[in-house]
Amino acid sequence: MEPFEVHILGCGSALPTTRHNATSQIVRIGNKQFMIDCGEGTQLQMRRSHIHFSFVNHIFISHLHGDHCFGLIGLISTFALLGRKAPLHIYADPLLQRLMQPQLDFFCKGLGYALYFHPIDATLHTTIYEDNSITIETLPLEHRLPCCGFLFKEKPKKRHLIGSMIEYYNIPIHLRAALKEGAHYTTPDGTLVPNGRLTTAPDPSRSYAYCSDTLPCPSIIEHIHRADLLYHEATFARTEHARARETYHSTARQAAQIALDAEVKQLIIGHFSSRYKDDSLLLREAQEIFPATHLADEGLIFDIK
Amino acid sequence: MEPFEVHILGCGSALPTTRHNATSQIVRIGNKQFMIDCGEGTQLQMRRSHIHFSFVNHIFISHLHGDHCFGLIGLISTFALLGRKAPLHIYADPLLQRLMQPQLDFFCKGLGYALYFHPIDATLHTTIYEDNSITIETLPLEHRLPCCGFLFKEKPKKRHLIGSMIEYYNIPIHLRAALKEGAHYTTPDGTLVPNGRLTTAPDPSRSYAYCSDTLPCPSIIEHIHRADLLYHEATFARTEHARARETYHSTARQAAQIALDAEVKQLIIGHFSSRYKDDSLLLREAQEIFPATHLADEGLIFDIK
Repeated sequence: MEPFEVHILGCGSALPTTRHNATSQIVRIGNKQFMIDCGEGTQLQMRRSHIHFSFVNHIFISHLHGDHCFGLIGLISTFALLGRKAPLHIYADPLLQRLMQPQLDFFCKGLGYALYFHPIDATLHTTIYEDNSITIETLPLEHRLPCCGFLFKEKPKKRHLIGSMIEYYNIPIHLRAALKEGAHYTTPDGTLVPNGRLTTAPDPSRSYAYCSDTLPCPSIIEHIHRADLLYHEATFARTEHARARETYHSTARQAAQIALDAEVKQLIIGHFSSRYKDDSLLLREAQEIFPATHLADEGLIFDIK
Repeated sequence: MEPFEVHILGCGSALPTTRHNATSQIVRIGNKQFMIDCGEGTQLQMRRSHIHFSFVNHIFISHLHGDHCFGLIGLISTFALLGRKAPLHIYADPLLQRLMQPQLDFFCKGLGYALYFHPIDATLHTTIYEDNSITIETLPLEHRLPCCGFLFKEKPKKRHLIGSMIEYYNIPIHLRAALKEGAHYTTPDGTLVPNGRLTTAPDPSRSYAYCSDTLPCPSIIEHIHRADLLYHEATFARTEHARARETYHSTARQAAQIALDAEVKQLIIGHFSSRYKDDSLLLREAQEIFPATHLADEGLIFDIK
């Protein structure tokens, strides 16, 4: 199966610490790499994580807080210095482009590649990216300003041909593509061979949901139902429940409850407040509700099998 | 003697690497901390170097290339999140404020402290900061856009009273301040006691010159003459002489020649091109001309005794 990986470049919150960088992730699906959020220092984290700069063509910004986008200008500049030619697509609240434009005009003159901003309406659940194998949808979240998560979904895949049966029926090459799509086969003497005898089920279509920053937001549950992997912010421990509410963030328990209600397979928690010197407290609190919880950490790669 | 230290937070050049961060330094003189340049990731480097955020009140930006200023917006935001109340002063090309203003207005609303931009004219050699113990002067440099270095100089210090002599002559307390300034003393019976019998020479006034980014620039030599410490960019090795010329940078040899001609006591070289995996080549080339050369590196502290 093609790789479907989430690389954690940063999983801290507003105040960076020596333990956690500002938020950024790379979602690698096959040979495509998508960046989610781009806090200050993201390009350095890419270096440390050996992410190829030239493979990142699409960047998705969840919301306009500095810890999720201050690394963009440096990354855009570095791409230019590295001689990039491929277009770069940034999906974000349309305000971001207006805020960055003066700096882009000055610091990134003669960029050498095309930079496209694609406006996101964070209040809508909609498909913002699609190619031959995946879709990316927005997940409206509840934060202090417009904010959305992103749902990465593989499209339904093709069925696998059973080599011995294809050979047995001597099926011509030009008919095989249809079999992968589920077609039956009719032999030259008119016998119908049902598809189920010629193929096996396709690989499952995997999915990954990224949800940060947000209050616990039950409206996303239907969209992320049975996702293979959910990253959900867990800025606070339960003792800071009131603070979480006040700042439109979630506790580890709340993140776990969303995972449980959505019946996802695995949960990663991140966006840890700088007050926690040891994030294992957050892990314990989440695992009480949803045992298949993992702590994000810089450099970690979560692999969806 | 009070501390006079240079903390290297970053000494890489335009492309950050896993070895070197973008440019930033803290100059600590007594209990004051001045920041020079603020590339992306500077606030993280401050954390790693245990620099107290609240002691930094003045930031000097040499020029408007991203690797010298992209960290400012994050630092300004973090100061606000930490509840800063003290004003923050930024000394930079006036264009910087115009470029940052849209982002300041949006990301740093209700900052909680006053932010002052002080325009620098990088073409002038002039004093841009002065307090009771030090001055900071601009040093016009030659780069692809307006750029200046900064010369930190302690003001002349007071002479030291010789305790036993003060006691011997029983000199009243209210007259002692004048002695420290060099005044003679006349005893009640009219005898003149020359200052040299009552005091010893003041501590030397130390100085530090920061010069990055620039072509070798002989016009600075008179200003940095006999400085205790010079930081000079050395982006390239001698084999890249032409490239240095073309990009308005210096080679390690050229940096060393400036140090030699200016008769400074110590030289630090930095702003290393990302092409060098081992900076010791640059060190060797500089030391051939100026033996008292040191390599900058993240986390290093250079102490002027």
